[in-house]
Amino acid sequence: MKIAVLGTGMVGQALAGRLAGLGHEVTVGTRDVAATLAKTAPDSMGNPPYAVWSATHPRVRLATFAAAAASAELLVNATLGVASIAALEAAGADNLAGKVLVDTANPLDFSHGFPPTLFVTDTDSLGERIQGAFPQSRVVKALNTLTAALMVNPKTLADGDHSVFVSGNDAEAKKTVIALLESFGHTDVIDLGDITAARGTEMILPWWLRLMGMLNTPMFNLKVVR
Amino acid sequence: MKIAVLGTGMVGQALAGRLAGLGHEVTVGTRDVAATLAKTAPDSMGNPPYAVWSATHPRVRLATFAAAAASAELLVNATLGVASIAALEAAGADNLAGKVLVDTANPLDFSHGFPPTLFVTDTDSLGERIQGAFPQSRVVKALNTLTAALMVNPKTLADGDHSVFVSGNDAEAKKTVIALLESFGHTDVIDLGDITAARGTEMILPWWLRLMGMLNTPMFNLKVVR
Repeated sequence: MKIAVLGTGMVGQALAGRLAGLGHEVTVGTRDVAATLAKTAPDSMGNPPYAVWSATHPRVRLATFAAAAASAELLVNATLGVASIAALEAAGADNLAGKVLVDTANPLDFSHGFPPTLFVTDTDSLGERIQGAFPQSRVVKALNTLTAALMVNPKTLADGDHSVFVSGNDAEAKKTVIALLESFGHTDVIDLGDITAARGTEMILPWWLRLMGMLNTPMFNLKVVR
Repeated sequence: MKIAVLGTGMVGQALAGRLAGLGHEVTVGTRDVAATLAKTAPDSMGNPPYAVWSATHPRVRLATFAAAAASAELLVNATLGVASIAALEAAGADNLAGKVLVDTANPLDFSHGFPPTLFVTDTDSLGERIQGAFPQSRVVKALNTLTAALMVNPKTLADGDHSVFVSGNDAEAKKTVIALLESFGHTDVIDLGDITAARGTEMILPWWLRLMGMLNTPMFNLKVVR
């Protein structure tokens, strides 16, 4: 499948690399290609700059948000939550129309330091805002509840015996995304219903971040025991 | 131990019954003893009225919030979140002073229907409000992330292979609560740190409620796989 991964950070790299490894034709989208390639310093989390990652992933192309989106059959939003709507506007509503859009972002507001607050809670969510802003796209909220390495390689933790979630208004789009998640190795993908369920998975983040701090690692995930 | 369980609903009944079964001297606290005993209808969730439950649990006493709290060494807040501060005020700050107070309540606001919203998010929590309102008490947030039956009998699901959390400012109080949870059968009690971690566990509720709706049962819990 032709897939655009919007965002060049840790989540974008992990998803682009894994998807390319599975044989998909992947283009990473960014605001400014030259600026992205010119970065030489690690990001604030200590991850290497995109150019370093790119050198070991020659099959993954880099393009503007719009060019990446235009040629894609399926899109992944792997931008920061605060920048997601702008990135998708740059990608262009026409380039999103009719396509599955996997939204992995969280509405985290770091402007007051750590821990971040959420800029959407309770009666709205980033997933809903994206679906509302791009009504022709087929948004599926997924993968926003675990760290990037486990999103794409769940079997590295407890042989994959843990859970992930999808929510969205389009049943066929969710089927596509569930199949994609299963191709990563996920064995317990729980469908939470329509896109309003993104409220719930996004609001897990304060708990998740606290747990990361106490466990001193992001390499954990939750399993729904039932 | 002499324990006061504040609240006569499903959570209060489950905790009082289990604690009494473990040999503790349990008094359930309520606003109005006569009114509680006079109820003959099930509650809005279909649970039997207190008097019916009480008949099968003769060792558990019923008293006013203040009388229950006065004689207790440890207290459990099992009231609805919207009523918790008022119930604890009725119990009396003096009767809480120096004592461990296990807060199991969630800040759910049902005034706009289902699903409820949270009346505290992000930079505050019900656990913190209770600790702030009763600074002499030793608040430990616990058990607000699973259904009452599993709070007290975790082994009935997957032989107890799932997780619960404690948070609070008093290390000794948390030790006491962890031991109590272990006496119920919990084997993975995760200490999330100080009482501000209640923000995280309370904000899980929208996800939890959605999952309950999709699974069509509250008999599930999360396990932190790490």
